Amino acid sequence: MTLAEHKKALACAVKAARLVGRLMRQNLHIDKKVNSATAHDIKLELDVRSQKLIEKTLLQSFPKVAVLGEEGVSGDQSADSRWVVDPIDGTVNFSYEIPHACVSIALQTKDKTSGEYVTVVGVVYDPFCDELWTAIRGQPSKLNGKVIHVSDRKALKDCIVSIGFAKSRSNLERTLPYFNVLVRRVRKIRLMGAAALAMTYVASGRFDAYFEQGIKLWDIAAGGLILECAGGEFWNEPVDSQHTYRLVANNGYLRKKLQSLK
Amino acid sequence: MTLAEHKKALACAVKAARLVGRLMRQNLHIDKKVNSATAHDIKLELDVRSQKLIEKTLLQSFPKVAVLGEEGVSGDQSADSRWVVDPIDGTVNFSYEIPHACVSIALQTKDKTSGEYVTVVGVVYDPFCDELWTAIRGQPSKLNGKVIHVSDRKALKDCIVSIGFAKSRSNLERTLPYFNVLVRRVRKIRLMGAAALAMTYVASGRFDAYFEQGIKLWDIAAGGLILECAGGEFWNEPVDSQHTYRLVANNGYLRKKLQSLK
Repeated sequence: MTLAEHKKALACAVKAARLVGRLMRQNLHIDKKVNSATAHDIKLELDVRSQKLIEKTLLQSFPKVAVLGEEGVSGDQSADSRWVVDPIDGTVNFSYEIPHACVSIALQTKDKTSGEYVTVVGVVYDPFCDELWTAIRGQPSKLNGKVIHVSDRKALKDCIVSIGFAKSRSNLERTLPYFNVLVRRVRKIRLMGAAALAMTYVASGRFDAYFEQGIKLWDIAAGGLILECAGGEFWNEPVDSQHTYRLVANNGYLRKKLQSLK
Repeated sequence: MTLAEHKKALACAVKAARLVGRLMRQNLHIDKKVNSATAHDIKLELDVRSQKLIEKTLLQSFPKVAVLGEEGVSGDQSADSRWVVDPIDGTVNFSYEIPHACVSIALQTKDKTSGEYVTVVGVVYDPFCDELWTAIRGQPSKLNGKVIHVSDRKALKDCIVSIGFAKSRSNLERTLPYFNVLVRRVRKIRLMGAAALAMTYVASGRFDAYFEQGIKLWDIAAGGLILECAGGEFWNEPVDSQHTYRLVANNGYLRKKLQSLK
């Protein structure tokens, strides 16, 4: 795809993200229909409705592209390009009316050599603080149109590290020992509950690192590109074949220090 | 003081909170002068400037009232009434450009029988989500003018509990064991880094409880009244003579359950 095509895709993803963002703002304080709830997660009817709105908006400009989303798939899942979508990232926050949640939309294309999908366009939109992060591979990431960059903090004692305690008991038990070590070494730990925002906060130099066991591809596809194009890095390792990963994201200086604590 | 006087005080506090909120919005993405930094805390020049702006605004309407603030005191500290002020609650967040911080302003008057100060007016303003919480003792609390109420969740497994890991090593060591028990019992833990917002989030039914060792009076004076007038409760125990407390805030159903976990 050309840069012009990436720009067209970005504009379309921004349009979809803003539409869902408006829906989220309108519904924050309204009782929400819960489709399912587990010990540490909730799924809302509005998640599904939001993904449909994103699909409808994307398909207006890209009628043949496939969608892989938290709320299901559509189109040809072996296509050369696909949209990876989390319609509401931070659903538990959102359903408890905590205004820290976002929309995440990424476009991925298959690498011709490896056959692996690579993210080429990423959009993350926080409708409550009206913060829109955008990235096109090879270009600098932006927040509300301004170029952003990761922090340059190198000492853990100066750092804020975000941790996700994911949705299963086994991930919790794996994360807790690491949390107990880390909390003594850093300036602050934050558990804020929206993975894609944690990635963009690292990209913007607000957090210095972010760590989560059992994260899903749609949580980090857009945020990962935004982080890389802002000078940061992330390392992820597949946990299963259901798009689940272990993730360490950071400003580029902290990966070894963070991994040595385990 | 009469209700009319309380309303006048509330209007004045709202004016001051909005002025500081504007200053916070203008300065979020600007490099900030740090007055001092410890392992887990930061003090900014803007904290001091914000408190002065609050004092100046309050003194226009209440020339004789004393101020007890995070950034120092002014006026007669044994006066019948005093303003208790945290100009920027969540300073570490704010200095890392994390848009989760607020202004907290309370008016306290001395109880004629006990001689203890009692909060009668409270204002908490989050300038990034433009959320203004207000309370006058005896009236329902409001968020942006609408009456709010705490949640009615009674089972810990359904609850979101906010924890503050306060500013000293000893508080950290006391909080960690409790954290490790609690995280297995609740739906989600949140560490978001602004004490007054944690109180108002409990008041609004977003969080079900909030727990912190080593909190200061100015962190919880306004939020405590807002919580009580929204149907919640908090329990605090002095730790020292420097206005430091242990705090458990909740929706009214969880105090015993939370305390039994220790």
